[in-house]
Amino acid sequence: MAAPTGNTCEVMERSIRERVPPLLTDLYQFTMAYAYWRAGRHQEPAVFELFFRDNPFGGGFSLFSGLHDCLLFLRSFRFTDEDVEYLRSVLPPDSDPTFFQFLRGLDCSGVTVNSVPEGTVVFARVPLMEVAGPLAVVQLLETSLLCLVNYASLVCSNAARFRLAAGPRRKLLEMGLRRAQGPDGGLTASRYTHIGGFDLTSNVQAGFLFGIPVAGTMAHSYVTSFSSLEEVWPQTLVAANGNRDQVDLISLTKGWLGRVCDLLGAEPGKIREGELAAFLSYAIAYPHNFLPVIDSYSVSCSGLPNFCAVALALCELGYRPRGVRLDSGDLCRQSVNVRLRCWAACENEIDTVGVGTHLVTCTSQPSLGCVYKLVEVRGRPRMKFSEDPEKTTVPGRKAVYRLLDTEGHPFLDLLCLAVEPPPKAGLPLNCYPLGWDNASHSVTPAQVICLRQDVFTKGQVGIAQHRMRDIILYMHKLYTL
Amino acid sequence: MAAPTGNTCEVMERSIRERVPPLLTDLYQFTMAYAYWRAGRHQEPAVFELFFRDNPFGGGFSLFSGLHDCLLFLRSFRFTDEDVEYLRSVLPPDSDPTFFQFLRGLDCSGVTVNSVPEGTVVFARVPLMEVAGPLAVVQLLETSLLCLVNYASLVCSNAARFRLAAGPRRKLLEMGLRRAQGPDGGLTASRYTHIGGFDLTSNVQAGFLFGIPVAGTMAHSYVTSFSSLEEVWPQTLVAANGNRDQVDLISLTKGWLGRVCDLLGAEPGKIREGELAAFLSYAIAYPHNFLPVIDSYSVSCSGLPNFCAVALALCELGYRPRGVRLDSGDLCRQSVNVRLRCWAACENEIDTVGVGTHLVTCTSQPSLGCVYKLVEVRGRPRMKFSEDPEKTTVPGRKAVYRLLDTEGHPFLDLLCLAVEPPPKAGLPLNCYPLGWDNASHSVTPAQVICLRQDVFTKGQVGIAQHRMRDIILYMHKLYTL
Repeated sequence: MAAPTGNTCEVMERSIRERVPPLLTDLYQFTMAYAYWRAGRHQEPAVFELFFRDNPFGGGFSLFSGLHDCLLFLRSFRFTDEDVEYLRSVLPPDSDPTFFQFLRGLDCSGVTVNSVPEGTVVFARVPLMEVAGPLAVVQLLETSLLCLVNYASLVCSNAARFRLAAGPRRKLLEMGLRRAQGPDGGLTASRYTHIGGFDLTSNVQAGFLFGIPVAGTMAHSYVTSFSSLEEVWPQTLVAANGNRDQVDLISLTKGWLGRVCDLLGAEPGKIREGELAAFLSYAIAYPHNFLPVIDSYSVSCSGLPNFCAVALALCELGYRPRGVRLDSGDLCRQSVNVRLRCWAACENEIDTVGVGTHLVTCTSQPSLGCVYKLVEVRGRPRMKFSEDPEKTTVPGRKAVYRLLDTEGHPFLDLLCLAVEPPPKAGLPLNCYPLGWDNASHSVTPAQVICLRQDVFTKGQVGIAQHRMRDIILYMHKLYTL
Repeated sequence: MAAPTGNTCEVMERSIRERVPPLLTDLYQFTMAYAYWRAGRHQEPAVFELFFRDNPFGGGFSLFSGLHDCLLFLRSFRFTDEDVEYLRSVLPPDSDPTFFQFLRGLDCSGVTVNSVPEGTVVFARVPLMEVAGPLAVVQLLETSLLCLVNYASLVCSNAARFRLAAGPRRKLLEMGLRRAQGPDGGLTASRYTHIGGFDLTSNVQAGFLFGIPVAGTMAHSYVTSFSSLEEVWPQTLVAANGNRDQVDLISLTKGWLGRVCDLLGAEPGKIREGELAAFLSYAIAYPHNFLPVIDSYSVSCSGLPNFCAVALALCELGYRPRGVRLDSGDLCRQSVNVRLRCWAACENEIDTVGVGTHLVTCTSQPSLGCVYKLVEVRGRPRMKFSEDPEKTTVPGRKAVYRLLDTEGHPFLDLLCLAVEPPPKAGLPLNCYPLGWDNASHSVTPAQVICLRQDVFTKGQVGIAQHRMRDIILYMHKLYTL
């Protein structure tokens, strides 16, 4: 598979300006910015926190993702003349024209972001990103940051759940492009499911842009496009050992087919000739990569005997067939049948699971629900109340610590006010677990990790930001522990 | 609101090459194309059909959308040297190098698309698009066309259901950007929910690109950022009638607040001063557009009295307040309470519903499941069987007619083979309704409409393709009938 293209970062930064221009936000960010500016409050220092209220899919954790794109977005955040002219046309006509000059000069040079690193296992209600800066600017960033984090974290977490269910060895292939929310939804899905633990994607553009290994073989249309063995051309193949004699693969396969039908109890009259032609044609094109879809007609009556016959003919020529693809019906039952009936002969086993629609649309919960809440203005804590106590915010600027036990396992994420002294390893500490009705609990961490880092300071991406490639390698290594 | 930008079409065509490059597809399209090419079958004339098997959301119809983007994609479909080099790196190393020269020269000049028009009400199992052309080319188009049609049609249909539930008069505002599948997912949602019947979007970039009217007022963060009346600046406003005397809006509002508390039975001690400051500051910035969010603290104890006081002060100066925004909790109950308590005074009524997450993620069914199936090669019908009878395809090239009764109402969509004579108005006709177990049924259409049109012929977009703006106007007019 191809190595990641060296200029991925530059490509991504160029493309983020087109994918996430500063107008890609809700209009109320601008009406609020105007009202702040009009009241002379736009430069007041303010702090927002980004978090989600419940772990997705009824699970116990989430993976935080999308930070890399957020940082590129912040770095390129600037309004063009055309943007500003458009805003002038949609804001009320009596808006003060000086406001638009103010917008034209805006950037993120006054913004600081303190964030959990990309790919971190995180929990509900923990502030994952803290965005500090001039009130009008950090308000304007809300929707874009949420848009970049929400789906990325959701689909990454979904992928991680598939990985945990599949175990460390089985290969996982993402193939959801056709059911995603448009082209970029598909690319985002490929990218963040890879971070979440998928090995492969069917999405070629995702391979091209992000260096994710790509995979794929054939659709039913390929199989059904053939109707007879006359369509197989060329009909010969040379052996894998380099012997240049052309062997007639059709005759060789026909010989195996009779024996296979006997062995499997298949009726030769029910074998689909077009399917056999498709398999042969593909095997001749890709003798090293023979992996046909076997359920275009009937797995047991035609697909499986045809596969076995071609596979055995390939084996005779020294090639190693890769396996079969099952696309619909009861996959578990069929895979057991297929394995029982021919796996011994082919020396192989089912090793890749492809997931499409359910992976990219996150069917059981198609949105994460990250929110972005004001917690401080001019050094004073701010709070939102709600009839729904879950939606009441926790005021003030915070620090987040992950506490580890003596075996190095994390057991608690601790929120403190930023001004409070940090917990110390080895010293007992009183904390108030969420949902415990204000009952306190004493814990003694063996190790304390500061969960967030400064990743963006005064317009510059901080040193703590790792390359995406390293993060993916790190994540995938975790699963094999 | 802004008129649609005149160059939307050009912008979209430029951007489609970046958003949907020909590599944005599944790898197996290329492995199949190679196998066809290797067998000398790549130029064989082939026909694919695009359709979905079930109406979404358990409903009775869907709106077909995404055609416009499909046509732009087809027109710009061409591989660059860089694309081809990448494909060479991911296909097996023993692939014939001449194949890559073939790819470099490919375009859609041999492709013909016959399609239902954008925005048509359509039903399950009806072939919506027929894509005909050289086998290898029309195979390569599968994933991209599905990606462009699937979500667009799904979210457009979802929007139409909201419109039908809301009735023709109430305004509908799409505000799902922050929960969409990334930036493009959000733009696609804004665009196709507008086609489906939404009036407004909060997404500014969607307004800029597509001319959709944008709307929005304020978030809770705006309200909670204020803590005292000292932060209101300027504190005065001139009357709407042009009189230039500056009136102290704070004093005026305070006078009204006492009377409002009496009237509503609200305790003056529970009024949030910061919320009142936020409302005043916003009203001074936007006296013609006063529409605050009133549930940052407590609707009945603070938000509603504060709104009424500021609104009445604005009324005294000749301005017309626009309404209130309710963001969470039991919206129905609260809206009734709010209306009961103060609507008479403000001469207004609830007229806009904003929908975010559920609209863009289509929570109850987050994918449509459009498929693209081979039905003919070299003039011969092709068919896929399946253990699931629903997944067995209907072979052969077809024509689709919509039959209307004497009152002009459509009552049946009729599939025929393309070679069969079309049904004639006034003549009885035997048909076999799907799911009727082959029982036939005689119908006599008063009018026959050919549902699909040639929209793309030999690389050129056909004349039948309407401007998006016309389609939207047409769709929205339908709802007011």
